[in-house]
Amino acid sequence: MSKPSVTIREVMLRDGLQNIREFIPTEDKIELFRLIVASGIRDIEITSFVNPKAIPQFGDASQMAQAVLKMKPEGVEVSALIPNLKGAQIALESGMRKLGFVMSVSESHNISNVRRTTDESIEELKKILELQADYPDLVIKAGMATVFGCPFEGKIKPQVTLNFIRRFYQLGLRHMSMADTVGFGNPQEVKELTGICATEFPDVTFSIHLHNTRGLGLANSLAAYESGIHIHDGAIGGLGGCPFAPGAKGNTSTEDLVFMFEEMGVRTGVNLAALMEASRYFKKVKKDVCFSSSILEVGVPVPKGAITKDGFEQKWNINT
Amino acid sequence: MSKPSVTIREVMLRDGLQNIREFIPTEDKIELFRLIVASGIRDIEITSFVNPKAIPQFGDASQMAQAVLKMKPEGVEVSALIPNLKGAQIALESGMRKLGFVMSVSESHNISNVRRTTDESIEELKKILELQADYPDLVIKAGMATVFGCPFEGKIKPQVTLNFIRRFYQLGLRHMSMADTVGFGNPQEVKELTGICATEFPDVTFSIHLHNTRGLGLANSLAAYESGIHIHDGAIGGLGGCPFAPGAKGNTSTEDLVFMFEEMGVRTGVNLAALMEASRYFKKVKKDVCFSSSILEVGVPVPKGAITKDGFEQKWNINT
Repeated sequence: MSKPSVTIREVMLRDGLQNIREFIPTEDKIELFRLIVASGIRDIEITSFVNPKAIPQFGDASQMAQAVLKMKPEGVEVSALIPNLKGAQIALESGMRKLGFVMSVSESHNISNVRRTTDESIEELKKILELQADYPDLVIKAGMATVFGCPFEGKIKPQVTLNFIRRFYQLGLRHMSMADTVGFGNPQEVKELTGICATEFPDVTFSIHLHNTRGLGLANSLAAYESGIHIHDGAIGGLGGCPFAPGAKGNTSTEDLVFMFEEMGVRTGVNLAALMEASRYFKKVKKDVCFSSSILEVGVPVPKGAITKDGFEQKWNINT
Repeated sequence: MSKPSVTIREVMLRDGLQNIREFIPTEDKIELFRLIVASGIRDIEITSFVNPKAIPQFGDASQMAQAVLKMKPEGVEVSALIPNLKGAQIALESGMRKLGFVMSVSESHNISNVRRTTDESIEELKKILELQADYPDLVIKAGMATVFGCPFEGKIKPQVTLNFIRRFYQLGLRHMSMADTVGFGNPQEVKELTGICATEFPDVTFSIHLHNTRGLGLANSLAAYESGIHIHDGAIGGLGGCPFAPGAKGNTSTEDLVFMFEEMGVRTGVNLAALMEASRYFKKVKKDVCFSSSILEVGVPVPKGAITKDGFEQKWNINT
């Protein structure tokens, strides 16, 4: 029996950029989107419909949405993040139909991040779901942040997350995402929680969003895959460091995820060499970018097929 | 049921140093040994009894052995690597009783590395085993290099390694080590091979030696643990880069291994803060050392217990 394939969801254009103060021109974001599509990635989060005063980087959210949707990339799921009803309305007006609502399962992180209690966030979500009356093709994914730990509250018990999943389920949601926002999870915890999710909610499509803050990104991804989670978020170059930890690693690098899964014989549909064109491009746009990706650092030694005399194929190494 | 604990085997003093040209003074190596013991590590490879013309770094192998054995560290397994009979004899004369014989399962790598065919290496091993007549307390571990891939031959089939394991078994060996010398393994391959080993040879104590060349070190370690391998090699600071890949990551970092397992609730008996005294010390001895360890890079955010106001405990970060 062949192993289930993995869908890599690219979040560089959202999570990867949100801590970069310098505004990245919209045309560069669009070119990055084009390169991501060209690599074979079929699930892309393109922006965040937040208050541009809070995050000026996403002041062009509507333009991004319109430009990207105009390209009509075949078979590509284009989504955006929304923190509230207003963001959802603007996103819908911009043509978006797949929206990720985000809230933290940690009360204090939710208050700090979106200035609401979790109950208030759920009320906001209900209002957003009412938009489906006018937009029957609107798909809302419930994104849960700080699932494996919160910078203020520390570890979060799986039961806390499961309670939110049950509430989302009762609201009719069948797409959910679990995020290890600060990279506090370990493979044991990831395995436990995702295992319960896959068993208890077989009709929910779960995705997982892991950060490599403490180096466990790939091991956690492996644990989630083995528990039956087959949509894995990644950011090109491992971008998206947590603002609480200067210098810390960010999202799990898409390159590393693709590499690990493809090496394991798990198909991702992504061409790693093509994907690297995106990080190359971004490095031209923002020369001081600091990538955090084993594959980008080391280049890709290729044990299969043609081996160079020293055993390594270095042509993909963009950092040297 | 509590999870099986892991024995961390520290190979910094051997694999970590073998590519460092500048001779590290014996007294510094001894101090590093002392710090490693103080951290709680109970299995340490202290040197390699190779021809000092080939690797001058280990010209002090006998002195190291004598000094370390004189310390009689309670409950600590002290071992050394031997490539041949001569090395074994010198090691025994120096007081060593736990020796790791190493050969590659890849024919061409074995020829390149020890200038013998694998059959010749097995003949050499037989001669070494004859020494047990004079030294009944001599324990030989059979170390297999290039188990998951060879820089010359590419991928190595599990059957190749399993055939060597059977031959070692017939020779009476019950301690064996599998090494991913160039970091070509992936979690799927590690899981498959180690799973067969644990099932087919329940009375053999296997250890695994992984390199993080392509960033898969921890994920591979996790896969091996889940298949029942409970002795994991690591090198402090992730030292020991492959000479074939300049700039490539080396052994899986002991700090990262300890961190991952302890976070998962798998006991290692190692105190991470104490362990970091060893890397700190080594940095003083060799200022230009380039560590490759997520935990050393990021510091250790501590989600449990006391959380600092920004959620991270940075005091362990020795790189900033």
